Amino acid sequence: MNSTAPLDVGDHQHATFPDGLDLECGVHLPSLDVAYRTYGQLSPRRDNAIVICHAFTGDQYVAETHPQTGKPGWWGRMVGPGRPIDTDRFFVICMNVLGGCMGSTGPRSLKPACAEGRVERWGTDFPPITIRDMVRAQYKLVRSLGIERLFAVVGGSMGGMQVLEWAVTYPHMMLAAMPIATAPFHSAQNIAFNEVGRQAIFADPEWYGGRYWEHNVVPARGLAVARMMAHITYLSEEALTRKFGRRVRQEPKDAQAPEASLAMFGDVFEVESYLRYQGSAFVRRFDANSYLTITRAMDWFDLAAEHDGELPAAFAGTPVRFCVVSFSSDWLFPTSSSRYLVRALNQAAANVSFVEIETDKGHDAFLLDEPDFDRTVRGFLCGVADHAGLA
Amino acid sequence: MNSTAPLDVGDHQHATFPDGLDLECGVHLPSLDVAYRTYGQLSPRRDNAIVICHAFTGDQYVAETHPQTGKPGWWGRMVGPGRPIDTDRFFVICMNVLGGCMGSTGPRSLKPACAEGRVERWGTDFPPITIRDMVRAQYKLVRSLGIERLFAVVGGSMGGMQVLEWAVTYPHMMLAAMPIATAPFHSAQNIAFNEVGRQAIFADPEWYGGRYWEHNVVPARGLAVARMMAHITYLSEEALTRKFGRRVRQEPKDAQAPEASLAMFGDVFEVESYLRYQGSAFVRRFDANSYLTITRAMDWFDLAAEHDGELPAAFAGTPVRFCVVSFSSDWLFPTSSSRYLVRALNQAAANVSFVEIETDKGHDAFLLDEPDFDRTVRGFLCGVADHAGLA
Repeated sequence: MNSTAPLDVGDHQHATFPDGLDLECGVHLPSLDVAYRTYGQLSPRRDNAIVICHAFTGDQYVAETHPQTGKPGWWGRMVGPGRPIDTDRFFVICMNVLGGCMGSTGPRSLKPACAEGRVERWGTDFPPITIRDMVRAQYKLVRSLGIERLFAVVGGSMGGMQVLEWAVTYPHMMLAAMPIATAPFHSAQNIAFNEVGRQAIFADPEWYGGRYWEHNVVPARGLAVARMMAHITYLSEEALTRKFGRRVRQEPKDAQAPEASLAMFGDVFEVESYLRYQGSAFVRRFDANSYLTITRAMDWFDLAAEHDGELPAAFAGTPVRFCVVSFSSDWLFPTSSSRYLVRALNQAAANVSFVEIETDKGHDAFLLDEPDFDRTVRGFLCGVADHAGLA
Repeated sequence: MNSTAPLDVGDHQHATFPDGLDLECGVHLPSLDVAYRTYGQLSPRRDNAIVICHAFTGDQYVAETHPQTGKPGWWGRMVGPGRPIDTDRFFVICMNVLGGCMGSTGPRSLKPACAEGRVERWGTDFPPITIRDMVRAQYKLVRSLGIERLFAVVGGSMGGMQVLEWAVTYPHMMLAAMPIATAPFHSAQNIAFNEVGRQAIFADPEWYGGRYWEHNVVPARGLAVARMMAHITYLSEEALTRKFGRRVRQEPKDAQAPEASLAMFGDVFEVESYLRYQGSAFVRRFDANSYLTITRAMDWFDLAAEHDGELPAAFAGTPVRFCVVSFSSDWLFPTSSSRYLVRALNQAAANVSFVEIETDKGHDAFLLDEPDFDRTVRGFLCGVADHAGLA
């Protein structure tokens, strides 16, 4: 296959599992939808599948134009023909997470019991879910595609949490794991930032106790504030200084907020303008209840706690080959968290390599142009593929 | 004087300057109130006065019980008889900043033109102010006390910005300056965090375009969200982990928020509970319009910009003795900012010492128990006092 050929993308894909899913909280989800996208071809031996787990506000459109926003896929530079995750060689699957809002079952979905009669959404009644619940939903989709063993599971940030949970829950179903810019638990600081975001949503007058759709509104201002704050944590101080510094811009009069008088001399800093744009763009594509459900799942993520506080025990005897990647200026999931993970993997006698990428781009670096990172991903996947005798 | 004697505090102090203040934005403030507190005795030679500049949400109650909250003074461990800033030796003045809400002129004040007839507050009509405006208001109060030369100006965080502005604007009116946990400009990241806080306030349904007092409410939820976020930036990740980690607590049923169902199994993380308390306590003592006015003043602070982009030029020929202090885990005003300041002072041939205190407590360390910091403050002030022949 020519590596410059367009991506081989099929129709938008969707699977329904009428047997539902037993959640960790004890609730049985009566029906489960998984929305997903695939890229490349599954090999006759069905041994070349890579699951890519998306981050918190990501989705399944990893390497193609997003149907709602019209923007390029969120990891198009990493996934495609000839790319580090090479769809000429690998069959890539990316699924919208359980609890999300891009087609998989989540708070925006209809309650099954009401689907026949009165239409009612889950909203805040959606049961609390965990990262493991997300992974167990993904497992069902993978098995339904006739795949008994994955070549690899790859993901950054919350996607990396899912990678780790995959490796712990289904260690014999995958050859390789790449947890990127992530941690085996959510830190107190991460929980704190998530909580501020949630409170911002609750404070919005159009939150309506989570039943905003009944009023044909969304809690846009609160959700935008949550996104603005989260966005700061995705960037490093260096990146913000490099991109914006203290530059100011004169806002056109008609674009000025009612509170523009608060600006000194009518100007705003470029970094403010940028954050406001990020906030307002986000509310057009993301659901507030999903924001709450997924941040909660992240907060509760603690692999060691699932194994009596012993992280190495989670990986005891694992056959999975790990490549752990961190970024030097990432302060949301700092290198120290990755080192902690690598030490536990070493204690479990796992096959693990570790790379810290030098960059000033912060947590977002895993989505951006970082040649060293590209080489790391390509090298690791090729190495394991060659070792495993993959065609 | 016995160093264990109670603080010598007079009645609550207040000065009105009917000639007002010319602000940097070009507006003339028709009348100026400065609320302040003093500790210790002014020497017969009037040469032992130290101005302490408070941080963003601080106030003049530096070393005594706060009359509204009933809490101890915010720097009681640093200021008092026998303390590092020794009120047996020094006469300490602390003023509520211009734009604040504890008695000095600010958005909560009545508009002078309306004071006789219809009562109207400034609210969002309060003119934009700068750190220099704050310092020029303080200068008027100091001069009104008959003090022609200060022994020192000391302050942390936004207080440190005021210290720097004092040294640049009135270099011949002070012997010593201690800018602590601060920077000569507000960084893009700092501006970004401030902007999120402002947007959280604007998003509150009880903001009412800044005229919330007309409705007998305050934008409590938005202001609390702003405070919660800011509070995270005052602490280090290490401090949050040490204080709270991932510990959970069962909230009593009657204390649960309406959104408690979002918590997994009814629990909340201790760090969430702590932040919620910080947020709700803050709204009882702080005014939302002051929050906006003061964050804007911080954002616009850039000493170099006032001198054609050359920070050393701001300090050219300064006779002031500087002691710059930073804290190793402070990521809001990192040590790199202090080093940048120190380099500029060195280029200006200023008399400057620099201390980085090793601590894991983050930005808040300047308010907390740090013996090395105490020794630094005491040592610097005693050294300059002895050198200057202070009694």
